[in-house]
Amino acid sequence: MPKSIALLGSTGSIGTQTLDVISRYPGEFRIEVLTAGNNIKLLAQQAKKFLPDTVVIGNRIHYLQLKEALKDTPVKVLAGDDAIEQIVAGSDVDIVVAAMVGYSGLRPTVAAIKAGKKIALANKETLVVAGEIIKKLVKQSGSRIIPVDSEHSAIFQCLAGEAGNPLDKITLTASGGPFLNFTREMLQNVKPHEALKHPNWEMGNKVTIDSASLMNKGLEVIEARWLFDLSPDQIKVVIHPQSIIHSMVHFADGSIKAQMGMPDMRVPILYALTWPDRFVSDLPKLDLSLHQTLTFCEPDMTRFRNLSIAYGALRQGGNMPCIMNAANEMAVNAFLAGKVGFLQMPDIVEHTMETAEYIMSPGLGYLETSDIKAREIATIYINELHRKS
Amino acid sequence: MPKSIALLGSTGSIGTQTLDVISRYPGEFRIEVLTAGNNIKLLAQQAKKFLPDTVVIGNRIHYLQLKEALKDTPVKVLAGDDAIEQIVAGSDVDIVVAAMVGYSGLRPTVAAIKAGKKIALANKETLVVAGEIIKKLVKQSGSRIIPVDSEHSAIFQCLAGEAGNPLDKITLTASGGPFLNFTREMLQNVKPHEALKHPNWEMGNKVTIDSASLMNKGLEVIEARWLFDLSPDQIKVVIHPQSIIHSMVHFADGSIKAQMGMPDMRVPILYALTWPDRFVSDLPKLDLSLHQTLTFCEPDMTRFRNLSIAYGALRQGGNMPCIMNAANEMAVNAFLAGKVGFLQMPDIVEHTMETAEYIMSPGLGYLETSDIKAREIATIYINELHRKS
Repeated sequence: MPKSIALLGSTGSIGTQTLDVISRYPGEFRIEVLTAGNNIKLLAQQAKKFLPDTVVIGNRIHYLQLKEALKDTPVKVLAGDDAIEQIVAGSDVDIVVAAMVGYSGLRPTVAAIKAGKKIALANKETLVVAGEIIKKLVKQSGSRIIPVDSEHSAIFQCLAGEAGNPLDKITLTASGGPFLNFTREMLQNVKPHEALKHPNWEMGNKVTIDSASLMNKGLEVIEARWLFDLSPDQIKVVIHPQSIIHSMVHFADGSIKAQMGMPDMRVPILYALTWPDRFVSDLPKLDLSLHQTLTFCEPDMTRFRNLSIAYGALRQGGNMPCIMNAANEMAVNAFLAGKVGFLQMPDIVEHTMETAEYIMSPGLGYLETSDIKAREIATIYINELHRKS
Repeated sequence: MPKSIALLGSTGSIGTQTLDVISRYPGEFRIEVLTAGNNIKLLAQQAKKFLPDTVVIGNRIHYLQLKEALKDTPVKVLAGDDAIEQIVAGSDVDIVVAAMVGYSGLRPTVAAIKAGKKIALANKETLVVAGEIIKKLVKQSGSRIIPVDSEHSAIFQCLAGEAGNPLDKITLTASGGPFLNFTREMLQNVKPHEALKHPNWEMGNKVTIDSASLMNKGLEVIEARWLFDLSPDQIKVVIHPQSIIHSMVHFADGSIKAQMGMPDMRVPILYALTWPDRFVSDLPKLDLSLHQTLTFCEPDMTRFRNLSIAYGALRQGGNMPCIMNAANEMAVNAFLAGKVGFLQMPDIVEHTMETAEYIMSPGLGYLETSDIKAREIATIYINELHRKS
């Protein structure tokens, strides 16, 4: 029996790579549901190729056009965020791949968790924003989260067979992004197209900018806290420009396990789909004779303030990671639009965190409000900065 | 209930480090048996400190002296190799640590396996000489071998939780030893005291010379073949001078797991004693900020012929690894005694392998004969070389 898959966010970077992986194993997987936010052209193509039971387009304005594009297929077409949630919760799928980018990934992921599905989680924001709530829901529903992010997949893989064994800490590796050795002055003037050139990984725009600013690593630190039940002090970050070691677990006996490989997201995607098994793959494999030197250094949290901001948000807890995440999404959009500079992104995030109302134990509803309010505060500040420039 | 331990070869490098580890966990382990070949002074000291039920001295001439040294203790004193075998097979121990060096480790280890004990195996020769037989015995008796060698412990740890998952290959790391960058001419003239200075690991003399000549890695390749049921082509060696990554498993999905840490044998010893659990330890821990660069390169099998000789012996199978191992033990002794040069060691091994009788499926008895005959052939050749020099 093939495993049936609901792929949320099928037109994004993780979504398309997930379909690439699935198409390599005919008969092993069956695409049951595809969803996307706006990209109907690609969604329709994917639907024609994989013939899922249902496709859902998040943005309702595209409904009729998508319906028309798929009229000669048996594929059911739905629209709207509520439809995504319902189809995920109700459908007969084994694995929900949560590959939407940003805050909008939270609600459908929560729906899938409540329905007790196995979640291949690529959407960082779910755990960043609502880690504590998600953890409880997973426990209640018997759902299981398998991380897709390369760093968290690495930790997850290193923990296989180690249940109950004490660990000192984990180390998340970070490439350092394209600006690793830039001075503050150079950082001030970097342009969006420069930040969009990641040295090792192929990713979507939002994640690529977050990588360049180290906010991506900050989000991953918060995500790791909830995925692996660690204290902030047990989560370290090391710069490893070659992106060959994807992360490490330091066990309390002095032994360290690392997961390594080519920087190719299809490897952790495949693992999330096959876990606890592994499939034979013909994806590019690491040849150490081509990667003869691996280097490591401490991250510079003064040039890359986002990382220390994220540790701060994690330590404060409550709705603070939600506020940070919302402000950062706005800051990244503003940077990509040329409205603010690279070093103004952490300013925007910090300003928003200082201004927004702090709540220690927010429910999901309050997090939604926090998210909206934080975006408002960030937007006002962005416009101010933009006017001054 | 503390785990009870029989430690065979307690006065050697692995033996003393095992006692160091055990003394760090009062109440967790109980030393039931200690054995040594000749070093009665240290054996008596150890017996007084750990108060085992029994000590056995391999070389019978030391019996009375040891008996006298321990006359004020309740420790039983035995002598002779047969006594070692009997006490290992009969005693009420949970784990037999097989830490004897060289061929003499084979018989007591076989006795322990036949008795169905859990074996923490540090004696390489057991599997090198009699891998196929040992594998069958383990299967019959329900014994379990946990490797202690840092490389094999690394592979063993990386395989935890991966039962049944397909792998492409493993990579054993090798420091390259003190002569990594020596030319052939320089190698010709190295002296024993130079070869005894290992850059990273503290080990006994035999292993240290084998490290410098890469025969140690060759023995490990053969050992890995039996421990992990791999073909010779699935076992690779990479030079990694920092000895931080202890070895790696390349799974067939493109994911690689590596085990890392300080080069300290006490870590794999501790793991072998606690497996499948891990204990919290205060052994020195790896700080990547002090080891910022890890490098890798292919081993040079022309300057270090022993490694290709070992692959050859493994591919030939039968009694050939036994012959190789016996000739190498004689070659190392001759080198340490100043009778032959560093580059003559592989000559001696190769000459012996070409001269000795090849048997495809030897039993344990025939292996013993092969070992003796190989030593004779090697000795004659060594004396010839010595006369000519």
